[in-house]
Amino acid sequence: MNDITMKLNADELIRMALREDISSEDVSTNAVMPKAQDGEVELISKQDGIICGMDVYERVFKILDDSVVVEKYVDDGDEVKKGQLMAKVKGDVRVLLSGERVALNYLQRMSGIATYTHEVAALLAGSNTVLLDTRKTTPNMRIFEKYAVRCGGGQNHRYNLSDGILLKDNHIGAAGSVTKAIQMAKDYAPFVRKIEIETETLDQVKEAADAGADIIMLDNMDPATMKEAVKIIAGRAKTECSGNVTKENILNIIDSGVDYISSGALTYAAPILDISMKNLHVI
Amino acid sequence: MNDITMKLNADELIRMALREDISSEDVSTNAVMPKAQDGEVELISKQDGIICGMDVYERVFKILDDSVVVEKYVDDGDEVKKGQLMAKVKGDVRVLLSGERVALNYLQRMSGIATYTHEVAALLAGSNTVLLDTRKTTPNMRIFEKYAVRCGGGQNHRYNLSDGILLKDNHIGAAGSVTKAIQMAKDYAPFVRKIEIETETLDQVKEAADAGADIIMLDNMDPATMKEAVKIIAGRAKTECSGNVTKENILNIIDSGVDYISSGALTYAAPILDISMKNLHVI
Amino acid sequence: MNDITMKLNADELIRMALREDISSEDVSTNAVMPKAQDGEVELISKQDGIICGMDVYERVFKILDDSVVVEKYVDDGDEVKKGQLMAKVKGDVRVLLSGERVALNYLQRMSGIATYTHEVAALLAGSNTVLLDTRKTTPNMRIFEKYAVRCGGGQNHRYNLSDGILLKDNHIGAAGSVTKAIQMAKDYAPFVRKIEIETETLDQVKEAADAGADIIMLDNMDPATMKEAVKIIAGRAKTECSGNVTKENILNIIDSGVDYISSGALTYAAPILDISMKNLHVI
Amino acid sequence: MNDITMKLNADELIRMALREDISSEDVSTNAVMPKAQDGEVELISKQDGIICGMDVYERVFKILDDSVVVEKYVDDGDEVKKGQLMAKVKGDVRVLLSGERVALNYLQRMSGIATYTHEVAALLAGSNTVLLDTRKTTPNMRIFEKYAVRCGGGQNHRYNLSDGILLKDNHIGAAGSVTKAIQMAKDYAPFVRKIEIETETLDQVKEAADAGADIIMLDNMDPATMKEAVKIIAGRAKTECSGNVTKENILNIIDSGVDYISSGALTYAAPILDISMKNLHVI
Amino acid sequence: MNDITMKLNADELIRMALREDISSEDVSTNAVMPKAQDGEVELISKQDGIICGMDVYERVFKILDDSVVVEKYVDDGDEVKKGQLMAKVKGDVRVLLSGERVALNYLQRMSGIATYTHEVAALLAGSNTVLLDTRKTTPNMRIFEKYAVRCGGGQNHRYNLSDGILLKDNHIGAAGSVTKAIQMAKDYAPFVRKIEIETETLDQVKEAADAGADIIMLDNMDPATMKEAVKIIAGRAKTECSGNVTKENILNIIDSGVDYISSGALTYAAPILDISMKNLHVI
Amino acid sequence: MNDITMKLNADELIRMALREDISSEDVSTNAVMPKAQDGEVELISKQDGIICGMDVYERVFKILDDSVVVEKYVDDGDEVKKGQLMAKVKGDVRVLLSGERVALNYLQRMSGIATYTHEVAALLAGSNTVLLDTRKTTPNMRIFEKYAVRCGGGQNHRYNLSDGILLKDNHIGAAGSVTKAIQMAKDYAPFVRKIEIETETLDQVKEAADAGADIIMLDNMDPATMKEAVKIIAGRAKTECSGNVTKENILNIIDSGVDYISSGALTYAAPILDISMKNLHVI
Repeated sequence: MNDITMKLNADELIRMALREDISSEDVSTNAVMPKAQDGEVELISKQDGIICGMDVYERVFKILDDSVVVEKYVDDGDEVKKGQLMAKVKGDVRVLLSGERVALNYLQRMSGIATYTHEVAALLAGSNTVLLDTRKTTPNMRIFEKYAVRCGGGQNHRYNLSDGILLKDNHIGAAGSVTKAIQMAKDYAPFVRKIEIETETLDQVKEAADAGADIIMLDNMDPATMKEAVKIIAGRAKTECSGNVTKENILNIIDSGVDYISSGALTYAAPILDISMKNLHVI
Repeated sequence: MNDITMKLNADELIRMALREDISSEDVSTNAVMPKAQDGEVELISKQDGIICGMDVYERVFKILDDSVVVEKYVDDGDEVKKGQLMAKVKGDVRVLLSGERVALNYLQRMSGIATYTHEVAALLAGSNTVLLDTRKTTPNMRIFEKYAVRCGGGQNHRYNLSDGILLKDNHIGAAGSVTKAIQMAKDYAPFVRKIEIETETLDQVKEAADAGADIIMLDNMDPATMKEAVKIIAGRAKTECSGNVTKENILNIIDSGVDYISSGALTYAAPILDISMKNLHVI
Repeated sequence: MNDITMKLNADELIRMALREDISSEDVSTNAVMPKAQDGEVELISKQDGIICGMDVYERVFKILDDSVVVEKYVDDGDEVKKGQLMAKVKGDVRVLLSGERVALNYLQRMSGIATYTHEVAALLAGSNTVLLDTRKTTPNMRIFEKYAVRCGGGQNHRYNLSDGILLKDNHIGAAGSVTKAIQMAKDYAPFVRKIEIETETLDQVKEAADAGADIIMLDNMDPATMKEAVKIIAGRAKTECSGNVTKENILNIIDSGVDYISSGALTYAAPILDISMKNLHVI
Repeated sequence: MNDITMKLNADELIRMALREDISSEDVSTNAVMPKAQDGEVELISKQDGIICGMDVYERVFKILDDSVVVEKYVDDGDEVKKGQLMAKVKGDVRVLLSGERVALNYLQRMSGIATYTHEVAALLAGSNTVLLDTRKTTPNMRIFEKYAVRCGGGQNHRYNLSDGILLKDNHIGAAGSVTKAIQMAKDYAPFVRKIEIETETLDQVKEAADAGADIIMLDNMDPATMKEAVKIIAGRAKTECSGNVTKENILNIIDSGVDYISSGALTYAAPILDISMKNLHVI
Repeated sequence: MNDITMKLNADELIRMALREDISSEDVSTNAVMPKAQDGEVELISKQDGIICGMDVYERVFKILDDSVVVEKYVDDGDEVKKGQLMAKVKGDVRVLLSGERVALNYLQRMSGIATYTHEVAALLAGSNTVLLDTRKTTPNMRIFEKYAVRCGGGQNHRYNLSDGILLKDNHIGAAGSVTKAIQMAKDYAPFVRKIEIETETLDQVKEAADAGADIIMLDNMDPATMKEAVKIIAGRAKTECSGNVTKENILNIIDSGVDYISSGALTYAAPILDISMKNLHVI
Repeated sequence: MNDITMKLNADELIRMALREDISSEDVSTNAVMPKAQDGEVELISKQDGIICGMDVYERVFKILDDSVVVEKYVDDGDEVKKGQLMAKVKGDVRVLLSGERVALNYLQRMSGIATYTHEVAALLAGSNTVLLDTRKTTPNMRIFEKYAVRCGGGQNHRYNLSDGILLKDNHIGAAGSVTKAIQMAKDYAPFVRKIEIETETLDQVKEAADAGADIIMLDNMDPATMKEAVKIIAGRAKTECSGNVTKENILNIIDSGVDYISSGALTYAAPILDISMKNLHVI
């Protein structure tokens, strides 16, 4: 994760997560270890997968104690194998124990998303279709989860409601028509925003392309209809397939020629990657 | 969710989640709806499950606009059926659109955990064994996730490192022995804390019971060994089974007579419950 | 200003500005007015201009005391004349006195920017060229200043470094070439971002258009060169004129056919609009 | 700027300004520069003026990356000439690019105020009259702007409503008379506060001096009347001239013998000083 | 307490104190009272004293639940007798229980300070000497404690290091002499600050008065020396007696003619006033 | 104080306390010391007592300036004698002066509590009765005050309402009976909480013990009744004596055989320990 993003945007969230887990002190650890003692622990993957969140993992310990050293043997985006040693963490044993859970809670979830995204992205390999995430992220985890999607080989859709335009059926209804909605968005939005619009019929697709949409979302269309939509658009806009994407039908979707496939499941259905800290010992 | 908890502890997290999704404005909505307009939308479950997070769902809209009204037809902990109307939300259409994603992101995750917990807890029905969660929660989501476990029929293990003692192998190692670790914890911790200790062998179990542990965790033991452990303890301490609990082996575990079974999966492996907002219309 | 933006994004800044001005209490007012007393004060413009910030002005008082009533006779974006009564504010006299300075500090600055933007935008009237702001805003005032630009008839360039791509000479240098920089940005950025690139020569302009830039900034070019650039681009990208725009040469720039003119002066050189609160009296 | 002030009071504002400009990441920079690379850039003044804000400028980069080094060749309060090299900044090129705008936004505004204040203060040279600022500062910029006034040769009036007494017409009206207002303030305020009162007539001036005001503000009086006021006060209180001060009439004001002249324009009308970062190159 | 001060400055501290006491929920109350139930409780003084903090007491409950009603029968500054009914609080019993401790923690401490201050101030009755507090307040309680001093009949010394000048021996040493220190402070500080200087000898007193100090602190001098100091100063500055003030010697101090006596004990040695909430019952 | 607790939980409170005392700058110090100058000051106890807060004392200076060095000659919990040199602090004289008051405000209060607790705890020496604190702490000081109790030889009762169960008369009333209240708490609370219940009669004591309470509070009972209560409980629960504990009657209480005595006075009635910083000099 980019250092500036870590400091300006992620750090405060990590600090909050630590306070969530340590509201006054780690009673167990402090009860039996009144004094600092140097130790070392190994970070080991218990499953095959794609790693994501090594910097966040490190940052958790660094926030607790700047003198902790994390020797990393893998980088974000790397493949790991079950049993692989990913890092050694050295420092005051009390810090290693107190930070373990929060550090793993981040690392396992981020790696889970990267791994799952990687599997889905693999299905698109060789095609020109790009895999996208959505805004269906866990509250206060978006900066970590969207980053994990990128580490897994996906690309990010808009970050939030403020930095991307997506005109849905209710927006179109309020505006009066697809054409009017697109025009109103162009008049209103900062000029660096692309205008995306959701369509449900080929008529809407045609109207959207004619009105100058930058991206046309094909919502819950079957592959054949999407193919037709792509033909109508004829390169005038990018296309995004959204809704009911499964591993089974994804090849058909690619065949339709859409530019992007978005999947909320990347961030709400990815199982965690099982990773653990082992062999803590005094040194 | 308790009103005081909502105001003192949850509100700021919800507000942050809203700022995560709206860093300056909802450009799409504001582009096409320059003025407020009253509308109504339905909250509908798309799966069978246990609902959790209705108050949080409502709070998301209330934070954006105090005049929004959420008519709730279900309470947290209720069972819902696929297609069931759970609530109607009335207010400025722009607020309904701008808050939708964050509100659902909470509700779907919390309901997913309640549903999953409910399924596992059902396996324990009729026994005296209680289902517990762990600290393997999503960062900055613990207050929501632990509450969801309760709605699903589980009970909460310690909230965090500060409000519960759990002496693990490294703590025992640092203290010198099971007995010494328990004694040190009793001397150090606020006197309202129960002392729990993790054991891996029957010798440790015996030592822990003799030393006056309040709760003895039986870590990764097979059912037969646990049965033996329960016999050794003979009511002197509560017992918690931890590790490798599966739906398949859970009945055997119950048979061993343990008081509690803890499962991290409740909060890290529960699929979301699919819920959506439909039929938004102006009124 | 949009209500949601006010609550989620502006409110905390306004509250901080109030704390900046009242770190413990308004000593003068509290010394002479130990009790609440209802009063009314008039908000009067002392110059012709475009008003912006009426909601922020109101919010300052509402944060101090929710029972204050601001009767507004003008809306953001309206023209006002010297001496025009813009609003009446009713409430506890102590609140009217304690909030006055912060409320005016916002209103005068925002109206100043709207007025200045309006004057510059008037020069573009009848053309297809749109006026843009920049990131040269006052720290912690951007959400107010960018909004003021819109009220004055300008459009917003990117909000910040995270929601827009602008590849400058150093980015091009790091990438190796205009073409490579554009390609890297397309590969990296969320797909809803347009790609803008800064060019200084016609060769760069041609390369940028060929490489698929969405927006090409023509940096410090004279009108004749810009005209040539527009011809080379031939509708393949939008064009933005940046640098050394003055009221004197702006008509020549428009003639060159550029789509956008950006001006940092909108937010760093606009004089405040003189507005005052008068005739405070007890009611 | 004093180190303690920077850490306790300015730092959080600077951090917020950085987050305003980087809500998730600098997309452009990160797209083309995946790795850190050492570079150097020059800070050059493009106008003659008085510099203010060098420590704040440095702090912006230090907050992003503590290893950045700013070699400063000028101090706050120094005069600079057009084209003068003011500093060299060395560090990761990505940090130099990402922090540039916020750093300059502070430095240009603070130097603008220092320069403008210096010009006005020069008119008072040789007299005993001191130039003061007001509370007409930009919201959330007061600590920077009041400091800039000092760097430019002015002195600060009260920092805010909590640390200075200024009894205006409405306060006098509420108290019943000038004398009563002064007495109430003396009874109420912390004893380290001087009591200042605004007067509009010579009768008020006399009453204020008799009642023991520490400072008497002469509000919108012509020089002749002020001369008379100074005579009436006869050294019993300090005098402050406020309102309609212009470069044209300032010499007449000085002649009237007032101790202080306050000017809101110092902080609301000062043009920025044009400063830029040039010649960024890899080292 | 002033409403604006409460909202801008005290509210956040009260909220933090509530979070300190309720980090997730009031487990005891929620266990036995799953539903809201209206109740009433009486606030009764168990000692004679001066009441202070009634608004803060009320605010604690209002923050938890805006519908709580506090009927107050006494105001801040009033005398109360042992057994006196001070207020009735009506609302959800759970809120009354959950807020009780924090509300009393504030009220008892603030009333304790008001009561103690009142006792000391009574010793000064009939004299022209005013009682002052110091900065020896409890961290993060100053706004409450300084207010309590005023309610008890004392006056506030400076609020903090930023809003008052007090030149102590180390400042004098750094400046070179009493005269130089005073001159440097006059040159540096905002002009609304009075200049106070600490003196230990009559020579210093004379030098301070000659140099134009506004307030001269007589540090640890005996009454006779102070009398002499007052004579030397001859009305040119106010005098403050500081150090070793006791109830026994205070009359002698007054006789010396000093204007102010400051006492740190007001805020660090005042015993709490015993107040309790009684007779909670459902209504 | 534990390092992690300091960083995660105490640091922000200390920073706030510093901002409370320095809202913009230390005017006095900055007026006379424009430049940094190295100095040294001694920390000396002016009374016999138990020291607590040395790390907090150090942290105050470190937050202002990381290069300050505090050489500590005593640790938290140590006895000190009047006149004893406890530490030397070296660093920029301005930092030593600006941080002095806040550092001492913490250290004196924490040491006062430790000293007072130590005196009370001494009365229990030789018995099996343990001394406990309560929640009657100063708002926003609990983490410091509870720690001070431990340093003085006491043990902590629950930290707050969220981490301990204490069923009082109103809870019992709401539940219907002692037995029901205990059962409801067992059903509701996280399983690591001990259940404590307040009793006023021996019937209640018996009922509580029979119902499985972990701790039974004997509220305002005389020693003879407590003795009887202990007999009834017969080791089935721990006992806590609460209410009207005085130095005079404490031996009788111990004789009754209760396990714990809790005293609110430890945190609300402890006088500060007088400690000062002396002999500041330039080095």
